[in-house]
Amino acid sequence: MAKQKPRTLSGFMELLPEKQVQFEKMAELLRRSYALYGFTPLDTPIIEASEVLLAKAGGETEKQIYRFTKGDSDLSLRFDLTVPLAKYVALHYGELTFPFRRFQIGKVYRGERAQRGRFREFYQADIDVIGDGKLDIVNEAEIPAVIYNTFTALGLKRFQIRVNNRKILNGFYAMLGLSEKSGDIMRTVDKLDKIGPDKVAELLTDEEIGLTAEQAGEILKFIGIKGSQGEVLASLEGYRGRNETFDAGLDELTTVVKYLSAFGVPEDHFTVDLTIARGLDYYTGTVYETAMLDHPEIGSVCSGGRYDSLAEYYTDKQLPGVGISIGLTRLFYVLEEQGYLNDQLSTAPADVLVIPMTADLAPAISFATALRNAGVRAQLYTEQRKFKQKMSYADKLKIPYVAFLGEDEIAQSAVSVKDMATGQQRTVSVDEAIGMVKAGLAGMAGIAPIKEPKV
Amino acid sequence: MAKQKPRTLSGFMELLPEKQVQFEKMAELLRRSYALYGFTPLDTPIIEASEVLLAKAGGETEKQIYRFTKGDSDLSLRFDLTVPLAKYVALHYGELTFPFRRFQIGKVYRGERAQRGRFREFYQADIDVIGDGKLDIVNEAEIPAVIYNTFTALGLKRFQIRVNNRKILNGFYAMLGLSEKSGDIMRTVDKLDKIGPDKVAELLTDEEIGLTAEQAGEILKFIGIKGSQGEVLASLEGYRGRNETFDAGLDELTTVVKYLSAFGVPEDHFTVDLTIARGLDYYTGTVYETAMLDHPEIGSVCSGGRYDSLAEYYTDKQLPGVGISIGLTRLFYVLEEQGYLNDQLSTAPADVLVIPMTADLAPAISFATALRNAGVRAQLYTEQRKFKQKMSYADKLKIPYVAFLGEDEIAQSAVSVKDMATGQQRTVSVDEAIGMVKAGLAGMAGIAPIKEPKV
Repeated sequence: MAKQKPRTLSGFMELLPEKQVQFEKMAELLRRSYALYGFTPLDTPIIEASEVLLAKAGGETEKQIYRFTKGDSDLSLRFDLTVPLAKYVALHYGELTFPFRRFQIGKVYRGERAQRGRFREFYQADIDVIGDGKLDIVNEAEIPAVIYNTFTALGLKRFQIRVNNRKILNGFYAMLGLSEKSGDIMRTVDKLDKIGPDKVAELLTDEEIGLTAEQAGEILKFIGIKGSQGEVLASLEGYRGRNETFDAGLDELTTVVKYLSAFGVPEDHFTVDLTIARGLDYYTGTVYETAMLDHPEIGSVCSGGRYDSLAEYYTDKQLPGVGISIGLTRLFYVLEEQGYLNDQLSTAPADVLVIPMTADLAPAISFATALRNAGVRAQLYTEQRKFKQKMSYADKLKIPYVAFLGEDEIAQSAVSVKDMATGQQRTVSVDEAIGMVKAGLAGMAGIAPIKEPKV
Repeated sequence: MAKQKPRTLSGFMELLPEKQVQFEKMAELLRRSYALYGFTPLDTPIIEASEVLLAKAGGETEKQIYRFTKGDSDLSLRFDLTVPLAKYVALHYGELTFPFRRFQIGKVYRGERAQRGRFREFYQADIDVIGDGKLDIVNEAEIPAVIYNTFTALGLKRFQIRVNNRKILNGFYAMLGLSEKSGDIMRTVDKLDKIGPDKVAELLTDEEIGLTAEQAGEILKFIGIKGSQGEVLASLEGYRGRNETFDAGLDELTTVVKYLSAFGVPEDHFTVDLTIARGLDYYTGTVYETAMLDHPEIGSVCSGGRYDSLAEYYTDKQLPGVGISIGLTRLFYVLEEQGYLNDQLSTAPADVLVIPMTADLAPAISFATALRNAGVRAQLYTEQRKFKQKMSYADKLKIPYVAFLGEDEIAQSAVSVKDMATGQQRTVSVDEAIGMVKAGLAGMAGIAPIKEPKV
């Protein structure tokens, strides 16, 4: 028979079992961390009606969309989890309780140009809090705590959450009489890290944007405000009283900073960064980015912010919210590339490999059943192979314990258990064996999926 | 602004938060149950190249496929998890360790005619064991144990696993000289439950199939073999020695039955049912179906079997396997329709709603942080609403505990905790409050998502 060459599409991540376990462990920790903050899990379809999904989209997004027809239906694959959330909240408004806090971890699709580290199918892991009409500022203060605790649970240590407030930026540009140019200015300022202040000043004063040298100087001075959170806030107080929006933003930022220690975020994991703007026509208050300190080139690994209107394309209801998103597939790829995946994390499909040594398999089956009833993952190995091959199977899969049931063991109602890490083997009763394995596994629990390499 | 009416496509399940939690709990129990048997989690892309995905498909499947082009690529959405597994194993053959045991819970797509209870996007929850060249019969005996323990963990009691062996059927039809008609015969016999033996005999002897009355009688007698497992096996022994395939199948079935009690499957949850055939051109040995005893009209909720060749369209390697699949979305729909979802299962997004009663929120935030650090899911409620509305929020979301921090509590370093089920409220220290909540939650743990309604 002619064979079809098997292949996986480029831009689609497909992991080998060991890596998949590491990925699953990360996703599980995200779910657990999000749940601790009262976010409820949500799942929406991957396919939506195109006119619904693309009500707002345009430009670059629309070009990347996977869009097709099936029968008479014009369908599209979701390209993020925010638009489906907006649809969900508008559609089920009357059946939801607000503030509505949801997390969603799911695949999204973007037909980007294929290149290393860019994915066309990738997981996003989002949380959002949606208010009905209003939403208290404390929700904005809580988000950095979620980010901090989530990355800490994953095992990451050297990261920093960077916060700004769009009202401060908008208010500041209004003070300079530059509101109409604020979009262009922010896009230029965003390049500061890459091209430096001189080049930014040059771009700001060139023909296209057309600022005066004085205005450019004011802007560079403003975004150059650095220091501890207290110092930055103090510097910003110097601008107070000249613009209402600015003052409102400064109040919000001050509140966010004030509550951070009660939320348990250490000061060194958090900074006010006036260069951060994020999605220019969407966010309206606090905005967040998260940087890996040893890999600034990767960009933000968790971003988001406050918005005034989640679902304006679907409903007249005012639905303000705040949310963040982790690009989990991209993050996993980067962590693997940079050697951040913890090889101490158990990736074995089972905790015990049970090898029967007699023709009658019943005692081995009973032992495997007893392990499972005790919550221990057990695999029976009954293939007709040489003993060495059976041990090599456990070895390759990194299964930590191997149990043998031969005639001697069966006669004594016992089992021989080999600890694959130490090589020690003991013949003990079934109950003792289960206890031994459970104690060993308890010692391996709590190992984080990320371990930072020594620099 | 003109609004786009939000809607979700018909045939796509989108659950409200409470139901979603019930669904997630079921999926989590499936993952846990599958993992206990040494299956490793896998995730493959939802989109595959059409020529890869459809290498084997044809007929009804091909018509239902979501197929489209993006750029120059001819793409399709997966319609099951078996073909992607075959591709995965063929593609990564050299990097896998066999027997390869994987589970996968993921969405698949079939553009079926829309009707109540039929889904176009639905979850399948599959396990498969793939051997390299050979695969021991014990794997076939273990599958009913996985089914039994999985459904039991979900809370289902009144179900029965039905097992047959395709070799027994093929051998039996060979004895009658009817091998070439066996497909037609099995398709007819499959209707026995619905149309009864007389009508089956009529169909078997009509022009299209054309059996003699005697042959039809033999077949009805054979598939009419009923009784305990021992009785059925004894009756089948009466046919031994007339066909090699039959004898091999009977040996396999006998082995499967023999090991079931060691695997912990109670005899009343398991039966040999000679009418079961399943996918006619795929399964080659043991086949499984699972019936809900009080809802036979639903059909099998978990099916599968043994196959000799997983990936023959992609590779010359002989890859025999055995697997089962649960149609999770359909199962969930049926359970909900039939009143099987356990309303005792907690669906709250948080365990404690923390309500600050002072202008300074720091003490409430610190308490919420302490709860989370202790693994308790806590939500701060800081919206400006009347007290009654705050309590109603907890009530609607079924949050079991509400904690208040007013001036009195803060002065005493205490917190008032209300148990929403009993209405009791106590003012205690932070540590006592955490202990109280954790004890209460421990009492609610282990509640299964399914509770059978009293008949």
